[in-house]
Amino acid sequence: MQFHLNGFRPGNPEIAPAIGAPVDQNAPPAEVDVLIVGCGPAGLTLAAQLSAFPDIRTMIIERKDGPLTHGQADGIACRTMEMFEAFGFAHEIKREGYGVNEVTFWKPGPQGGIVRSGRVPDVEEGLSEMPHIILNQARIHDRFLAVMQNSSHRMTPYYNREIVDLQRGDESDDYPVTVTMKRLDADHAGKTETVRARYVVGCDGARSAVRTLIGRSLHGDSANHAWGVMDVLAVTDFPDVRHKAAIQSAEEGSVLIIPREGGYLTRFYVELDQLNENQRINEKNITVEQLIAAAQRILAPYTLDVKDVVWWSCYQIGQRLCDKFDDVAGDAPEGTLPRIFIAGDACHTHSPKAGQGMNVSMQDTFNLGWKLAAVLTGQARPSLLETYSAERQTIAQELIDFDREWAAMFSERPKGADDADGEGIDPEEFRRYFIRQGRFTAGTATRYQPSTICGDGATQALAVGFVVGMRFHSAPVERLSDALPLHLGHEVKADGRWRLFLFAGADDDGTGASRVARLCRYLAEDAASPLRRYTRPGHDIDSFLDVRGIFQQRRDALAIEAMPMLLRPPKGRYGLYDYEKVFCAAPNPQEDIFAMRGIDRAQGAMVLVRPDQYVAQVLPLDATAALARFFDGFMTEPGAT
Amino acid sequence: MQFHLNGFRPGNPEIAPAIGAPVDQNAPPAEVDVLIVGCGPAGLTLAAQLSAFPDIRTMIIERKDGPLTHGQADGIACRTMEMFEAFGFAHEIKREGYGVNEVTFWKPGPQGGIVRSGRVPDVEEGLSEMPHIILNQARIHDRFLAVMQNSSHRMTPYYNREIVDLQRGDESDDYPVTVTMKRLDADHAGKTETVRARYVVGCDGARSAVRTLIGRSLHGDSANHAWGVMDVLAVTDFPDVRHKAAIQSAEEGSVLIIPREGGYLTRFYVELDQLNENQRINEKNITVEQLIAAAQRILAPYTLDVKDVVWWSCYQIGQRLCDKFDDVAGDAPEGTLPRIFIAGDACHTHSPKAGQGMNVSMQDTFNLGWKLAAVLTGQARPSLLETYSAERQTIAQELIDFDREWAAMFSERPKGADDADGEGIDPEEFRRYFIRQGRFTAGTATRYQPSTICGDGATQALAVGFVVGMRFHSAPVERLSDALPLHLGHEVKADGRWRLFLFAGADDDGTGASRVARLCRYLAEDAASPLRRYTRPGHDIDSFLDVRGIFQQRRDALAIEAMPMLLRPPKGRYGLYDYEKVFCAAPNPQEDIFAMRGIDRAQGAMVLVRPDQYVAQVLPLDATAALARFFDGFMTEPGAT
Repeated sequence: MQFHLNGFRPGNPEIAPAIGAPVDQNAPPAEVDVLIVGCGPAGLTLAAQLSAFPDIRTMIIERKDGPLTHGQADGIACRTMEMFEAFGFAHEIKREGYGVNEVTFWKPGPQGGIVRSGRVPDVEEGLSEMPHIILNQARIHDRFLAVMQNSSHRMTPYYNREIVDLQRGDESDDYPVTVTMKRLDADHAGKTETVRARYVVGCDGARSAVRTLIGRSLHGDSANHAWGVMDVLAVTDFPDVRHKAAIQSAEEGSVLIIPREGGYLTRFYVELDQLNENQRINEKNITVEQLIAAAQRILAPYTLDVKDVVWWSCYQIGQRLCDKFDDVAGDAPEGTLPRIFIAGDACHTHSPKAGQGMNVSMQDTFNLGWKLAAVLTGQARPSLLETYSAERQTIAQELIDFDREWAAMFSERPKGADDADGEGIDPEEFRRYFIRQGRFTAGTATRYQPSTICGDGATQALAVGFVVGMRFHSAPVERLSDALPLHLGHEVKADGRWRLFLFAGADDDGTGASRVARLCRYLAEDAASPLRRYTRPGHDIDSFLDVRGIFQQRRDALAIEAMPMLLRPPKGRYGLYDYEKVFCAAPNPQEDIFAMRGIDRAQGAMVLVRPDQYVAQVLPLDATAALARFFDGFMTEPGAT
Repeated sequence: MQFHLNGFRPGNPEIAPAIGAPVDQNAPPAEVDVLIVGCGPAGLTLAAQLSAFPDIRTMIIERKDGPLTHGQADGIACRTMEMFEAFGFAHEIKREGYGVNEVTFWKPGPQGGIVRSGRVPDVEEGLSEMPHIILNQARIHDRFLAVMQNSSHRMTPYYNREIVDLQRGDESDDYPVTVTMKRLDADHAGKTETVRARYVVGCDGARSAVRTLIGRSLHGDSANHAWGVMDVLAVTDFPDVRHKAAIQSAEEGSVLIIPREGGYLTRFYVELDQLNENQRINEKNITVEQLIAAAQRILAPYTLDVKDVVWWSCYQIGQRLCDKFDDVAGDAPEGTLPRIFIAGDACHTHSPKAGQGMNVSMQDTFNLGWKLAAVLTGQARPSLLETYSAERQTIAQELIDFDREWAAMFSERPKGADDADGEGIDPEEFRRYFIRQGRFTAGTATRYQPSTICGDGATQALAVGFVVGMRFHSAPVERLSDALPLHLGHEVKADGRWRLFLFAGADDDGTGASRVARLCRYLAEDAASPLRRYTRPGHDIDSFLDVRGIFQQRRDALAIEAMPMLLRPPKGRYGLYDYEKVFCAAPNPQEDIFAMRGIDRAQGAMVLVRPDQYVAQVLPLDATAALARFFDGFMTEPGAT
């Protein structure tokens, strides 16, 4: 964490100096850069991301009268934790949540009842440095709200507001979208308010008003499974109640147990369709007592004594999808650019079983946030915003395909009751499927296709472990200036900056005519260099493109004072050197980033990482023209607009 | 972290439900259990500790008008970080602070100037799982203040108050100490307030009024060294400005560089006595410009361009000590027990060079806090409080002896100027001394002597790595119920509870007639068992003595459902099982707690740990009588008072 660059400031360094007037709930601004509809995971991720930019004015509205207290979603994928690290609160989530380490599988026992059939690690070894965490969604909201509150605008949601109309006007208008909202709080009930916005993002859930107002709808599977879910405090002698446990009984259906934060709370998923015919529950009239009774039959002979039901629900989730995540219709005139977006459940819904809903929603707006910021601050062309729907709609489709397969797999049960051979889905097959699909579940399988902001991977061989289009897979390094062991990926913060990691070749120590030194000179001095062209005047040299060097030598074979100035740049009002840009491979060979990520030791590589932590390009260290071309494809020179 | 035991509660689980009225700065309570004087590290540690007990009413006062913003101390020893883990904020300190990993040494170069003479790890490998951290003292205060604010009493200091009188009255009075305070804030200037207290703790610094009022004084060394210290934002080409660096110049004296949090700030210590005779500074009239000039001469030929001085000071610190840390005089009648204590700088002062001051102060009151709580809640006899001075005064004396040696060592310099052979202290000797004394500096060398609350170590051989009288040295384990890898020492929270760790013998799986099972039966059922005698009725079975089991087997060879009930006890209003009491050795042989801590694999051992994380006793698993005898020596049966 870096701070005090422009002078010592007492207090919490994560609280930015305030600018402007505090939020007045009864006096919304007349004009905003971005209006976000909905304080769910998608909306809050976007608001927190945009709050990092003092120049951008964001408003977020919510129908409810305050922050969520009893969340429904609870699964936080490894990939999401990586994103939380970028927002600065992964360590808090890890500490407060339940960490999923191992999954156990239970099948019908030979003499009745159920028996444990296997254990597998929940997350494949080496998939992410981050754990899979279970925590009440409300507590994740709280963290995003804190990030917003600590930002220079002290951003707070405007509660009790429902969107009722949305009009996109002429592009010549600075604020072409007009939004009409209705107040829902008793004191102001029925009062309408109007806000004009440059962009509107609908994060307003499966029944999204924004989606409807832009004429889009969800399509998909209606042959859905019905689920009962309950968060309970219970006494049980079932031994794996603190393990994630998938339990298939012979006749009574299946249950998935998800232990929860705090050591005592437990979530049970009961799939209603697969209950014994005689016990089938009508999900219209279901009671929690019926859910408990079903769980008790499935767990038998183990007992389950539910002491307190904290929350329960029964729902059908279709795997449904919108064909486009913005407001530009297929028949729109050439060059029409999006002004209104939808994200999260507003454009895709998933089975809760795969734990995708909340995680995918947050990744949607993490993808959108930096793009909106780059366009609004005049750094990138507005056409960059077309990539949001292009990238995220494709990913949502892939996930829905996976969800459908996975949900079907999970719902199949031993057919003993109606099938003579007594065998349905083989528990072993289920387990293998589970392992194979772990990367999807962890959120690390996402891969964006080549585009203006995603390279083609032609020189991917230089760093096979940093796959172009996939998230930057962190690995350990040691910082040269202070010998601190850290994770390189954790240097990618949610601050809208691009990162360029220069992995040096074996004999490259950053000095003289070495390739790293030459590349740094090009970046700092050449008129064609993207760093020179696109860094805004008066901003720090790393404010748009943050360049880091990673060397193969041990620390004592390198000299910080001999590094190119770009790797120890003077910054801020005093021109203080930033000493946090040069790293060495960790001394333990098992943790050598060059080996772990398959970096070409002779040639080295440069790895360009987007503000949302995805690898944009892998290039040779001398591929300056390719690097420049990449940025020229979507960036705008300062003053050009 | 465990929560929701007695029902789901939304929001931050670290914020306790509030009881009583909020603090009114203008209406201090008339009577309190403990009055703490001073909001420095000692006072705040004690206040935070006592805030964990809803039954105890604590008041803390401070002369200043609000929280500290610009701290002076900045070094946080590994041992202190272990304590912060018990208070729940070590992870935040680690994230915000500078982590000291390596120290470099610089000596006069053969052709003038200075050259790097060596590098050593700052903390000896394996000394603690916690790092050595540098962070503005004010930010540590902020964390303690947050712990207090989150407690059930929403404890807040009473600022602008100075103690002016202190009278100890008759022991028959419930509140025998009467404290008179003077208001210092302009609106109330000169107004006096009176509070009656059961106990008073003076944490009011080197010029402690409480110390004076109980007739004690500091004694010791007056031949002290004068130091200049400055926190600056500076541009330098000295390569190790982000390393802790000890620099000895040939003629110009010595500097110690301590990099600070945030990546840019740097602390320089300049020892004034050892400056070149011609440049000697009169510490009475010193200016920061003189300090800067001295640092520049010492660092030459490297440049130092100070852009901003955040804080600076010049001071002499004597190694001074009070002969007793409470108010019971040597000639007091037999049986007189202490009512007034002093802690921190009020009873000992140290050279800042060894980084001891703040750390020792916090350990003082971590030692005192649980004792006060145990006496005030009626669990322990008041004579327990005699052990505070006995334990901490001895430790302070040891540290002062070490400080004196270390400060002298640091101040010696190459005598080139006035000694023909050109050699003074050998840098190599300095370096060896530094390494050897690392344990003192890290705060892990503290060892309490045998007493009513510290065993004699007669059966220490059963677990040689858990030294009786020293802090419980954490090691990794895996939790049986959920496969979570964690640090066993982090289970010892600052909640006033004792912990009993049962390390099982090789063939002990906790079942049947195994030694762990038998010991658990004794603890739960035998009338002589301390757990049965001293657990207060209506409190959870682990509320006084928290018993944990650690096994040598792999997880899949153990069954949580076969463990003694004491290791999965029903708790709280619903009788929910606590699944967080059974652990296995970590699978990596390098991290096997039995090997790391030298536990007798055949016999196992029980390790009793005090609420302040110190090992009270190591015993065989069948030494039930010795265990009972230990607690009978200072505990009180409920209802006995």
